[in-house]
Amino acid sequence: MGNLNALILNCSLKKSDEKSNTDALLKDFTNVFDSKHIKSEVIRVADYEVAYGIADDMGDGDEWPKILEKIKQTDILILASPVWLGEKSSISKKVLERLNGCSQTNDQGQPIFYNKVAGSVVTGNEDGAKNAAGDLIFGLAQLGFAIPPNPIAYWVGDAGPGPSYVEAEGYKNEFTQSNIQMASHNLVHLANILKERPIPAEGNVSN
Amino acid sequence: MGNLNALILNCSLKKSDEKSNTDALLKDFTNVFDSKHIKSEVIRVADYEVAYGIADDMGDGDEWPKILEKIKQTDILILASPVWLGEKSSISKKVLERLNGCSQTNDQGQPIFYNKVAGSVVTGNEDGAKNAAGDLIFGLAQLGFAIPPNPIAYWVGDAGPGPSYVEAEGYKNEFTQSNIQMASHNLVHLANILKERPIPAEGNVSN
Amino acid sequence: MGNLNALILNCSLKKSDEKSNTDALLKDFTNVFDSKHIKSEVIRVADYEVAYGIADDMGDGDEWPKILEKIKQTDILILASPVWLGEKSSISKKVLERLNGCSQTNDQGQPIFYNKVAGSVVTGNEDGAKNAAGDLIFGLAQLGFAIPPNPIAYWVGDAGPGPSYVEAEGYKNEFTQSNIQMASHNLVHLANILKERPIPAEGNVSN
Amino acid sequence: MGNLNALILNCSLKKSDEKSNTDALLKDFTNVFDSKHIKSEVIRVADYEVAYGIADDMGDGDEWPKILEKIKQTDILILASPVWLGEKSSISKKVLERLNGCSQTNDQGQPIFYNKVAGSVVTGNEDGAKNAAGDLIFGLAQLGFAIPPNPIAYWVGDAGPGPSYVEAEGYKNEFTQSNIQMASHNLVHLANILKERPIPAEGNVSN
Repeated sequence: MGNLNALILNCSLKKSDEKSNTDALLKDFTNVFDSKHIKSEVIRVADYEVAYGIADDMGDGDEWPKILEKIKQTDILILASPVWLGEKSSISKKVLERLNGCSQTNDQGQPIFYNKVAGSVVTGNEDGAKNAAGDLIFGLAQLGFAIPPNPIAYWVGDAGPGPSYVEAEGYKNEFTQSNIQMASHNLVHLANILKERPIPAEGNVSN
Repeated sequence: MGNLNALILNCSLKKSDEKSNTDALLKDFTNVFDSKHIKSEVIRVADYEVAYGIADDMGDGDEWPKILEKIKQTDILILASPVWLGEKSSISKKVLERLNGCSQTNDQGQPIFYNKVAGSVVTGNEDGAKNAAGDLIFGLAQLGFAIPPNPIAYWVGDAGPGPSYVEAEGYKNEFTQSNIQMASHNLVHLANILKERPIPAEGNVSN
Repeated sequence: MGNLNALILNCSLKKSDEKSNTDALLKDFTNVFDSKHIKSEVIRVADYEVAYGIADDMGDGDEWPKILEKIKQTDILILASPVWLGEKSSISKKVLERLNGCSQTNDQGQPIFYNKVAGSVVTGNEDGAKNAAGDLIFGLAQLGFAIPPNPIAYWVGDAGPGPSYVEAEGYKNEFTQSNIQMASHNLVHLANILKERPIPAEGNVSN
Repeated sequence: MGNLNALILNCSLKKSDEKSNTDALLKDFTNVFDSKHIKSEVIRVADYEVAYGIADDMGDGDEWPKILEKIKQTDILILASPVWLGEKSSISKKVLERLNGCSQTNDQGQPIFYNKVAGSVVTGNEDGAKNAAGDLIFGLAQLGFAIPPNPIAYWVGDAGPGPSYVEAEGYKNEFTQSNIQMASHNLVHLANILKERPIPAEGNVSN
């Protein structure tokens, strides 16, 4: 235990020189990881030139391979997204498309994402968090990640335009705080379990 | 290993005196369970008088408690649904609502569905399987089930009205067969793993 | 103008002897209809014995035909739903299934729902309104209803359990009030327009 | 009648130097438009440098303003998308985000997209068309477009990897062909109707 690491892809539409409300909520996540001596890294996907397409490397300066390499090294992956029009961001969808383009297998012949666990974090000023997180969780499960119970944390305000997580002091929301505790702990729990007892290569090996 | 059991809720709109294409696909699932000495039971939810509402027992002859009791006893839960209008069936949504009404905890204080694993099976004559399965998988994860990699199996025909699984000989579809193998094996694998190494009661215990 | 009528199907899980937050929001809708001399009727679907299935009449005391008759007579249909687990209610899905089972055509040979307009109203204590409304709007459009701009109104509170529309004084939410005005007016506008200028029977007539 | 024009945004992940199956299906759409003397233009969004963000012009060479100008001039807008992982493409989501960033109003004070009609076209090798189209249709309705009955056309093959529209001879699919006829005709019908009888500026005017 304790040799785990976590990678968080913040799929905000903004680059890291702009404040992201999602980042603020993610800080509470990484605090839990820190307390458990799990090394975590938060990446703003918008900082990278990620090409469109369904392949590991689309060439022409495509920077997805850099991110994919980090994903391959991680035990825990969190896809984080803001809400726009009640849905996950276009950048988070592009990440799913690029992950979908990966057909690499591990040395057991299982998809490369096996024995990694995944969760999702969503923030928005209003309605849409579960719709966004659900797409991400289901996509990740199909691609080979294992999903622990209560795998998401989110904050949204009430209906309509309004302040986001930081300004609205969403960190005072007990439900959101409870989500963060459950999701972060369960991601660590399941990652630890699969580290000791990986999923056997039976029935899930590509020919 | 081997002391596991599996419960499959077929959320077809038809009672069990009518043929269900979903049942046909499920047979392939239970064959895998049989081969691994896992006891499985398939229930047609439409055979029960399941009330609407968000509580464990809505009274007035509500038969949900009978189903809930079986769910509490199972290690593996599969929600199976036909596709109607590109979505999961109304009965499968009612099952999610009833599960959502359950606030029981295990003797560790975790939600009662912890350390159980869940998957989904969908059949339809056309388009909508992943939309249906995604809602079910995400709902189950939020409620406390753990989700193995590649947790679903489905068959749908090409766009438009047409024959369903049985008549269309969907069992000849290699992709569907591969899904069935992956989903059934991974459900068993993860259930076995969590039997030996349950999720610790830390961070996920209700106050 | 003014000879229009509107039917609102409240797909709450509760019968009409229990208070529905959705009803409270709907009152604001029908106030607009009243002011425009449009006769409106609100039905609680849970008050009817609506069978499962994909046909106009499933027999055995099925009361869907009573509701279908009202739908056939209306110019404006609103599907209203509470949010459960971030999704529309199972009863609203059952309504879509029953509408989907209707293959009647008008005297022009168009699907019977042509030249009717549809909208959606959703309330919940938290997140999920647009996900719920989107399923309903898209389902209705596929079945033959025309959808005006800004066809929905909703209220949800911020993330997590909490008070619903009435208790939370959601009627003070400016965004929700603006939604109600836009949706109710646009439903009336488009219904009036299609009354005078129905959709020609060209390209949309079943063989 | 006849002075209408249609704009089709093909949200394929590929630029126009690569073959798009979606384009092949769209050809059948524009044939109908041609027969009705409606000028149509198909744009491959991937050919443009469209920035991420929620504003009309994100600067730095953002080419969205060129597309937005075309949208402002059109009567009929069709968002076309391939299916990836059972969902609409990330590029189609980016288009929704950019449309969402537009808060311009017409000279009546209505959102700029009022009195325009919208539809959707989806192709994929398998499952996901209605999920993709539903997101697009609902997003467009919320932004101010009117949606005619049966507003979508799609083709997908049966479950699993396989040939796409062109190679699979999807054009022989009667259901898809019927969809194309209904969607294209109804888009024209409703656009004509709204040209003659625009939606009154009452209840839908921003303050």
